[in-house]
Amino acid sequence: MRVALLGCGVVGSEVARLIVENGDDLAARVGRPLELAGIAVRRKRERPGLPVDPDLFTTDATGLVSRDDIDLVVEVIGGIEPARSLILAAMKNGASVVSANKALLAEDGATLFAAAQEHGVDLYYEAAVAGAIPILRPLRESLVGDQVQRVLGIVNGTTNFILSSMDETGAGFAEALDEATALGYAEADPTADVEGFDAAAKAAILASLAFHTRVPLGAVHREGITEVTAADVASAKAMGHVVKLLAIAELVDGAVAVRVHPAMIPREHPLASVRDAFNAVFVQSAAAGQLMFYGRGAGGAPTASAVLGDLVAVARHRTGGGLGPGESSYADLPVRPMGDTLTRYHVSLDVDDRPGVLAAVATAFARHGVSIQTVRQEGHADDAVLVLVTHTARDADLAATVEELRALEIVRDVSSVMRVEGV
Amino acid sequence: MRVALLGCGVVGSEVARLIVENGDDLAARVGRPLELAGIAVRRKRERPGLPVDPDLFTTDATGLVSRDDIDLVVEVIGGIEPARSLILAAMKNGASVVSANKALLAEDGATLFAAAQEHGVDLYYEAAVAGAIPILRPLRESLVGDQVQRVLGIVNGTTNFILSSMDETGAGFAEALDEATALGYAEADPTADVEGFDAAAKAAILASLAFHTRVPLGAVHREGITEVTAADVASAKAMGHVVKLLAIAELVDGAVAVRVHPAMIPREHPLASVRDAFNAVFVQSAAAGQLMFYGRGAGGAPTASAVLGDLVAVARHRTGGGLGPGESSYADLPVRPMGDTLTRYHVSLDVDDRPGVLAAVATAFARHGVSIQTVRQEGHADDAVLVLVTHTARDADLAATVEELRALEIVRDVSSVMRVEGV
Repeated sequence: MRVALLGCGVVGSEVARLIVENGDDLAARVGRPLELAGIAVRRKRERPGLPVDPDLFTTDATGLVSRDDIDLVVEVIGGIEPARSLILAAMKNGASVVSANKALLAEDGATLFAAAQEHGVDLYYEAAVAGAIPILRPLRESLVGDQVQRVLGIVNGTTNFILSSMDETGAGFAEALDEATALGYAEADPTADVEGFDAAAKAAILASLAFHTRVPLGAVHREGITEVTAADVASAKAMGHVVKLLAIAELVDGAVAVRVHPAMIPREHPLASVRDAFNAVFVQSAAAGQLMFYGRGAGGAPTASAVLGDLVAVARHRTGGGLGPGESSYADLPVRPMGDTLTRYHVSLDVDDRPGVLAAVATAFARHGVSIQTVRQEGHADDAVLVLVTHTARDADLAATVEELRALEIVRDVSSVMRVEGV
Repeated sequence: MRVALLGCGVVGSEVARLIVENGDDLAARVGRPLELAGIAVRRKRERPGLPVDPDLFTTDATGLVSRDDIDLVVEVIGGIEPARSLILAAMKNGASVVSANKALLAEDGATLFAAAQEHGVDLYYEAAVAGAIPILRPLRESLVGDQVQRVLGIVNGTTNFILSSMDETGAGFAEALDEATALGYAEADPTADVEGFDAAAKAAILASLAFHTRVPLGAVHREGITEVTAADVASAKAMGHVVKLLAIAELVDGAVAVRVHPAMIPREHPLASVRDAFNAVFVQSAAAGQLMFYGRGAGGAPTASAVLGDLVAVARHRTGGGLGPGESSYADLPVRPMGDTLTRYHVSLDVDDRPGVLAAVATAFARHGVSIQTVRQEGHADDAVLVLVTHTARDADLAATVEELRALEIVRDVSSVMRVEGV
């Protein structure tokens, strides 16, 4: 069983190492040995400590996937091209593919699934979402006889590290980002993480699997964490909540809503105790009820563990016959726009401390059909703050309410606005 | 694709309901409709609300599994016989089997796996451990390219409910058990749960899968929670810990150690926040690092969700070819006796409050080669209590130390002894 590896960076080198070092175990589990047949890299260079034959390296990735002795291809290059062309060439050549490429799966999964089906090969991609955590296989296989209603995920380690740090130290976003960068948890250009692009790609993949439909990346509502302030985090804390960047996929009245944004969740929620760079995905389904999957969402070895699990699965299919589940997109569900999504808001207002303030504020909420669940006043005179949490309402109505509050004379500042989830 | 259902109790009736109510979804996922062909019950009776044809019920289970139109058999009877004979007859007849039977799998899994292999059929049993939580599939498939080092599980909801209640209210075991019984979380005869028999069966199954070996049920060291006192729970709390009944499977120096006993774990450990009747399994592996799987461990609908996931998998294999992974017992690992297992102890001693007490106590530990990590004295005079936590040592040496402490004149009582895990 001959394996071509595309990419030999942080993840690829760990995949190569595991294939070699766990060779006997893998052979026993597959029924035949797995042999590294070639490793495509951008540049050949010394890779001290990596236990593979230097002759395996090639800069000709296209040539590698076209060789007629390749059974399985592992793609850990990332990005759209050349990854997509290489995967399609590999499939056309009869190879099954394991990929860790969330961007490509979210952007153009349909093309890959169609090619896999056309050529009768497997496409597995557990490592594309939440690194080492087995979440795609449970959604694709374990929960396939159940009906998933909602998925709430902490699927980006960088932002979870930053928000955990803000929660623990009271730091602001910029300071916490600096710490994350210094410790290697954030990249030099952190945009993809802190603006939620990474989480949005994963949300699209999770939603597609959970609801057996196709959710285009463009249908995912996305807000990052750059505007989360120390005041937001403190306000969450004051009501027993914690701020997390959540990827949320819901099925409501036959429509799918998928969104990524910071939200306050109660400290008792299983996701609240997911700290630092850990990831977790919380699933609510009709029969199983609440499930949570927790672990490392990134890093070479954790991601390689997920790749290897997939590699053994597709290798077993080659030796024993059969194929894994293909794309399960028979339910072509409509996507609900963010404005129509039902959410709850937490709002902190700096207000004048005089009679009639609450009445004016409450009237603004009422005018947009938004019910208030709790309200409390903190401080007095110049420090008077009104903290409100709403009941569930259309997101557009909540946003319109906040706009109206900003314009009220008695409201000096809207100091914190954030959605509340997991209640 | 015709399904015979053996058993129609709490789980079986939910399985029947899901097969009927989710029929279209299941057909789309399998590629062919799943049809209930018969339901074996002990007694025929009215089952109001269950949407199945009353003619499907039969008291002749043996006749049902021998029919030549049966493709798949779901066994949710439980217990050793007649479940085993029925499963073996079904396999001999060419049917793949989905079972939720932890007792049978732990007691005589080898016979079932051998029969499955002989007859070329699947044996799936996700529901046997931790109900709805996908844990066996991740161990059998997702982590199969990795090396699991340790599994720590809260796999019994009854005992977790009791221990959570003791932690929250300060109640003793008897009082918390009464509450669990009144709320339906404990059976009239709670022995299998509170004495750890249920958890031990699950521990044997988890260990076998995690380490690709065969762990006989008799090799599982088992202690229940009946002797956990309010003082133990309070003592755990005082050092920031919580008491849980853990199923622990470890691979150390090529030997497997499997045990079920109450233990103190730090409140920061992911398992510590698993409350009430929830289950969770924490896995430590070489590449993936720390993983945790959380959800409902029992109940009709959650267990049925796991059964249906397996049913779709084995049905897909019937239509698309191939088989799932069989028993992975190629590593016939030795089992380490409990006495040789490395653990840590928490010990509380009521002592005389006079000079030399700590020296005498420390000498007893030293004589058995046990290092003390922390010691603190609480109270004075007649209320003097010495609380010690050891470093890791052989369990037999720790137990011998406690025996010697009991015999010391200055030790009035050994008020709490419990292992400490998850540090």
